[in-house]
Amino acid sequence: MPLHLNTLDADFEQAFTALLGMKREDSPDVDAIVAGIISDVRQRGDAALIELTARFDRLSLTPETIRFSEAEIDALIAKVPPIEAEALELAAERIRTYHAAQMPQDARWMDDAGAELGWRWTPIAAAGLYVPGGLASYPSSLLMNAIPAKVAGVKRLAVTVPTPDGVANPLVLLAARLAGVDEVYRVGGAQAVAALAYGTATIPAVDKITGPGNAFVAAAKRRVFGKVGIDMIAGPSEILVIADGDNNPDWIALDLMSQAEHDASAQSILVTDSPAFAAAVETSVAKLLTTLARAEIAGESWRDFGAIIIVRDMAEAVQLSNRIAPEHLEICTADPEALLTQIDHAGAIFLGQWTPEAIGDYIGGPNHVLPTARSARFSSGLSVMDFIKRTTIARMTPEALRAIGPAAEVLAASESLQAHGLSVTARLKALNEE
Amino acid sequence: MPLHLNTLDADFEQAFTALLGMKREDSPDVDAIVAGIISDVRQRGDAALIELTARFDRLSLTPETIRFSEAEIDALIAKVPPIEAEALELAAERIRTYHAAQMPQDARWMDDAGAELGWRWTPIAAAGLYVPGGLASYPSSLLMNAIPAKVAGVKRLAVTVPTPDGVANPLVLLAARLAGVDEVYRVGGAQAVAALAYGTATIPAVDKITGPGNAFVAAAKRRVFGKVGIDMIAGPSEILVIADGDNNPDWIALDLMSQAEHDASAQSILVTDSPAFAAAVETSVAKLLTTLARAEIAGESWRDFGAIIIVRDMAEAVQLSNRIAPEHLEICTADPEALLTQIDHAGAIFLGQWTPEAIGDYIGGPNHVLPTARSARFSSGLSVMDFIKRTTIARMTPEALRAIGPAAEVLAASESLQAHGLSVTARLKALNEE
Repeated sequence: MPLHLNTLDADFEQAFTALLGMKREDSPDVDAIVAGIISDVRQRGDAALIELTARFDRLSLTPETIRFSEAEIDALIAKVPPIEAEALELAAERIRTYHAAQMPQDARWMDDAGAELGWRWTPIAAAGLYVPGGLASYPSSLLMNAIPAKVAGVKRLAVTVPTPDGVANPLVLLAARLAGVDEVYRVGGAQAVAALAYGTATIPAVDKITGPGNAFVAAAKRRVFGKVGIDMIAGPSEILVIADGDNNPDWIALDLMSQAEHDASAQSILVTDSPAFAAAVETSVAKLLTTLARAEIAGESWRDFGAIIIVRDMAEAVQLSNRIAPEHLEICTADPEALLTQIDHAGAIFLGQWTPEAIGDYIGGPNHVLPTARSARFSSGLSVMDFIKRTTIARMTPEALRAIGPAAEVLAASESLQAHGLSVTARLKALNEE
Repeated sequence: MPLHLNTLDADFEQAFTALLGMKREDSPDVDAIVAGIISDVRQRGDAALIELTARFDRLSLTPETIRFSEAEIDALIAKVPPIEAEALELAAERIRTYHAAQMPQDARWMDDAGAELGWRWTPIAAAGLYVPGGLASYPSSLLMNAIPAKVAGVKRLAVTVPTPDGVANPLVLLAARLAGVDEVYRVGGAQAVAALAYGTATIPAVDKITGPGNAFVAAAKRRVFGKVGIDMIAGPSEILVIADGDNNPDWIALDLMSQAEHDASAQSILVTDSPAFAAAVETSVAKLLTTLARAEIAGESWRDFGAIIIVRDMAEAVQLSNRIAPEHLEICTADPEALLTQIDHAGAIFLGQWTPEAIGDYIGGPNHVLPTARSARFSSGLSVMDFIKRTTIARMTPEALRAIGPAAEVLAASESLQAHGLSVTARLKALNEE
């Protein structure tokens, strides 16, 4: 049974704070193992990759077969049923259009002092994308990571995807092709991250690594951070649904279960002002949990981390949502726009009854790589911004240096940085002697 | 003597690669100590803060004196000479104007399928800024961190600054006042970071921590990352100057030394197509190193990490600069704009002979918190973007769900996520029955 809270309860604040602080993930400490793997790949390159892949993926590789050939990709892609290929193409197109709209502009201007200022955005030169193998090898995740990179202008985009026992997912390779991925390697785990960060004879090093992975992959990404950039380390998925009584309880139950079925550590929370609706949703969930293919996982998530919170009104719902800062937020009320403007922290918002969160996972356009575990308080989902960087620009005219240089001299002196000050003084002197 | 390289040398590639891989920083392993301090502050709050401050800063505090009162700040600010106050005010105003221009726009649009998409930017609610104590307590750094936060709309901005032996820097407090900082606490080290991340009775927790610090502060920031956001962990400063022979060698020597005087681990590199100019700069540096107040630090940096690289032409200079991805890049050539467009990776660029890098440290407007150690390949300097986050928005009309929902059903099935698919199917069924 999920947690039942009511803001009218005397112990509500205590119980809600406990919900906020709930630890849903036990990361095994694999750091020492990962350190060994990274060091091995740095030292022995492809030889280490091949050995580790034989051990972990039961797959025998040579330097020539680490990378998928285009012919191999063609052959795999040919197996994808047309209906799936078309769905993936539509998803790729919609994700591309949405992310293209995110590209920021360069700027240059001259200010009153005569200083020309601005910035330029440039793409990361080479990015690596980790794609998990086996059951969690999601083509949708590949699109969500690879398309922003390519929209941003990343020239070289390499994918690593483990193929345990040599089994590759044709849809993942089709997604890679649709997204414009340049290289696909059949390696995984910490060894793939190490190869992307440090390079081997077969896999040239990249500048940034993104993509989800297990505890080994996460630990490896943390370790190589600094040498290369990394994206966030994502935790288990979560959804918060704010719904009034005028909703179909079966639909909301499905939305809650669509997070719960991801992972036993996922979290689904319903916030509503209608106790009757809450009861109806709970009944519907119970029924679903007798039929869903992944009922065991979804049931465990719902029992251990699910919650139903009854609030007095929607203002209270918004307050609680802002304290939770959910990864996914569905607002299913009569006027969702009115609540939207009051939401301070959320990864992605889905408005109204026709927008199940699953639309965002696949086809809506916005990214599905989003901040979990309350980190929407301080971070954003994946976007083109993760694959570009800004260089600031300044050019002083002699007039500008005359106007603002003396203040720089004063501040340099106040910080006891003499050469800083002199680099301005020397130039001002020349200007004054003109 | 700095490293001398010439692209014509047979062993140039090898020597340049060694320069790229040069390790300039030996971070002492303070992780175990820092873990203990954080755990102590989490458990004992203010009592731990007070004890640690007595031990490390030789300063006796009470819960009432951990925070600077407004009267204390007023009294300290009154000591700042007017010329310094005016310089700081001009700097604050220019930094504010530049960063205000960075604020991105929200977006909403309806696409052809009838899907309404977009995003909203919202500020981080509370941010903490670490300011080092003693000699490295720079008012300019306070402005560079605090102003972007306030421009972004951060409501609560807390500063921690250690005051060893109770000595506070009046300029730092004036900078805090000018930047609109809300709270200033006289604590530092890993204990200050722990207090900001987890909160104590006196210091409420924040959502993100930025600002430079020593090895203890850096290790503490790494440890609390996840609980709160952090900015980059900055390494020692660096500058690369691309200059042709038509420059004043004394000015370029000062620019090189203005980085070298920061830190013995700083790095200053001159790239020029004129061997004669290179020799003149080197002579000028040698002369400066007999007079500069911080000659010992600057000399050590120049000897251990400085480099002069002779190139055939400016195209080659740009290529080398892109491989280095410098934190600061000065382009002092006849047509700096022509080179600018070829620069792929740099934290900040200073164009032309009237723009010494020191202008950017204090008064130019762009941020001086910039990516070091080649991380400009994948990251940017501090900006308003560090204090806001993006929430994506999606709203499907019935028409949109009909158009793109079936593709989501197909993709959910291909990933074996049944509830995902059913959440769309249930709604499509209702639409079809209408």
